[in-house]
Amino acid sequence: MIQMAVLGFGTVGSGVVELIDRNQDVIRKTVPEGIYVKYILDLRDFPGNPYEERVTHDYNKILEDGEISVVCETMGGKKPAYEFTKAALERGISVCTSNKELVAAHGPELLRIAAANNCSYLFEASVGGGIPLIRPINSCLTQENITAVFGILNGTTNYILTRMEKAGLGFADALREAQEKGYAERNPEADVEGHDPCRKIAILSSIICGKTVRYEDIPCEGISRITPADFGYARAMNMAIKLLGTSRRNADGSMSVRTAPFLVREDHPLHSVQDVFNGVFVHGNMVDDLMFYGRGAGKFPTASAVVSDVMECAKNLGRTIRFLWDEELMTLSDPAGESYRHFIRIDNAEAGKARELFGQTAEISCEGAPEGETAFVTPLMTEKEFTAAADSLDSIRQNVRLLHD
Amino acid sequence: MIQMAVLGFGTVGSGVVELIDRNQDVIRKTVPEGIYVKYILDLRDFPGNPYEERVTHDYNKILEDGEISVVCETMGGKKPAYEFTKAALERGISVCTSNKELVAAHGPELLRIAAANNCSYLFEASVGGGIPLIRPINSCLTQENITAVFGILNGTTNYILTRMEKAGLGFADALREAQEKGYAERNPEADVEGHDPCRKIAILSSIICGKTVRYEDIPCEGISRITPADFGYARAMNMAIKLLGTSRRNADGSMSVRTAPFLVREDHPLHSVQDVFNGVFVHGNMVDDLMFYGRGAGKFPTASAVVSDVMECAKNLGRTIRFLWDEELMTLSDPAGESYRHFIRIDNAEAGKARELFGQTAEISCEGAPEGETAFVTPLMTEKEFTAAADSLDSIRQNVRLLHD
Repeated sequence: MIQMAVLGFGTVGSGVVELIDRNQDVIRKTVPEGIYVKYILDLRDFPGNPYEERVTHDYNKILEDGEISVVCETMGGKKPAYEFTKAALERGISVCTSNKELVAAHGPELLRIAAANNCSYLFEASVGGGIPLIRPINSCLTQENITAVFGILNGTTNYILTRMEKAGLGFADALREAQEKGYAERNPEADVEGHDPCRKIAILSSIICGKTVRYEDIPCEGISRITPADFGYARAMNMAIKLLGTSRRNADGSMSVRTAPFLVREDHPLHSVQDVFNGVFVHGNMVDDLMFYGRGAGKFPTASAVVSDVMECAKNLGRTIRFLWDEELMTLSDPAGESYRHFIRIDNAEAGKARELFGQTAEISCEGAPEGETAFVTPLMTEKEFTAAADSLDSIRQNVRLLHD
Repeated sequence: MIQMAVLGFGTVGSGVVELIDRNQDVIRKTVPEGIYVKYILDLRDFPGNPYEERVTHDYNKILEDGEISVVCETMGGKKPAYEFTKAALERGISVCTSNKELVAAHGPELLRIAAANNCSYLFEASVGGGIPLIRPINSCLTQENITAVFGILNGTTNYILTRMEKAGLGFADALREAQEKGYAERNPEADVEGHDPCRKIAILSSIICGKTVRYEDIPCEGISRITPADFGYARAMNMAIKLLGTSRRNADGSMSVRTAPFLVREDHPLHSVQDVFNGVFVHGNMVDDLMFYGRGAGKFPTASAVVSDVMECAKNLGRTIRFLWDEELMTLSDPAGESYRHFIRIDNAEAGKARELFGQTAEISCEGAPEGETAFVTPLMTEKEFTAAADSLDSIRQNVRLLHD
């Protein structure tokens, strides 16, 4: 029996415990000795809970048990998750985590400690919820020169955008609905301002380049400024608005990374990624485009990814699953040098001036468009050129980048 | 240096050799000693080809070399691929293959021989071209009770259907175009009659249930009977027509497997899988829906999957990568008991009778519909009920199943 502990008995942690019970028969086909959750670490007690007797408040009990070979860290946050993870790895106990904040902040250091102690630090659940993504990149695509990774990395905002698009809701109403359904937290900032997908694209960027991309260095925009009017125009252009994390390797070896809302064409597979689903594109020099799609959040999908990592550890006891992810910082390109086309809404009074600045483009009209404004798409231009032109205009109501063809 | 041989210097085989050269730097990050193609087995000579000197006509030279640890079987067909594969595995040489025909026919036997000789038989490239699919199912989803797998498994027919849909071509013209582009073979039967996706869904069904699903036992329909008129109606219903392989586990433990064209709703992610791309849905009891998307064929995408397997072998020399796939036959349900809704086109003269037989359904109209016919979608009914009703009608011009919601 593989003995393990779960740190944090919240949504994901309880999902891990329940999944291991419910799917024990399936699990034993691959790990014949079975997997058993011996401890659940939480500050709270859970009277009446069927797992109540496994709950402990004392992490040392887990570390000193001697039989625990894997720990699932589903606490979230950096403190005390960082110290707890380190303490386990230093004792040769593998750690499987859903904690993107910790992975983005300390991933390479924790991987190094794991390797030094013949155990593993695995983080499939930190990006894309239940989607097998990190392991396929790390073990199925090592023959590829991966030149880009981008996609919908946050289920909460994708749900909000889908509801705005399909039901015509405003941002505030769609957010409230997402909160009522438990998709958005009471303080939704990490999701709606893009910090969560920004951490995830930082992790993905790091594992495809082998160095560290710090999320603090990534330009990050959220979706709180997107309005129903924008969706009217998007529909007229056969596009959808999606919050994307994007990462591309440049010819000079640097990387361009960004988190922002983008207009996505109808015939792009990301267009039909709706509700809380995530979709992640990976581009390799030989395999071309791949997409991985599935539930980006939720109790059991996320728990599934955590348990997948636990099983990988169980099959590799005493060995380290390696990642190419150094602490050395990756060189990021100057975001001002990236080129995009922009969708623009501007007061009619400035439309002529805008046309001069951005060049001739066809006007976009749509049903129910706000009065007194003109909408169009700029030609491809660098962010620097765009900002210079936009700064000389006073009445830009909206601008959203278009995802490259 | 990992020494290997490639059997068959055709499209995929030459892709493997070129990929290993072009991406050797990337490969060495995971397999530091590097991978070298020492032999290329082919009946032909390749004068002037940069790899000409590695070509041999004698398989025994490869088997008796003593340094070869991996063989890529990219010959296709059962003979002599079966004997060659067996001979390698019996000497402890791992085999990586793109040959779905051989995997579907002899997979479990070859896996057993590999396990007995501490080597591996890997077949990522046999389904879904370059898409990481077999390994994710086998190594990232072992905590899941996988209850269904279905999708677009053949790039050639998906290209033909896409051209019929987008350019209004008839089947024959779209097929000719696919042949001109090298996507379809001169004898296109295996693709257009569904035999190729049928073999692939047989492989996928087998690896999710652990027993053997024989492709000969799967009901199989192709796309040669699909016409531009069908796409007119499909568009009017906001659907696309896709050739799917589908597989579901039933509550009684049996499995329902089928290959046929299906109508797919616009908001289903398979709807936007176009051209030669493949998309495969996997449904697990905890993770819910997943989709894997990418190029289902082509020289380098397929070679990428083969080399991915080679690297897995290189990382696991002397060990067997295990699959749960027994030779015991899986029980398939009676296809007549499966329930679907059917899209029907019938002569106006029989429309009244059809309505009585199938129940009230709204008539579907579309621009450019052929004269004298009525089109509608039946309620959900078993295939047995459908066949009984259809058999008492003389003028059904078309019927296509709808993919379940």
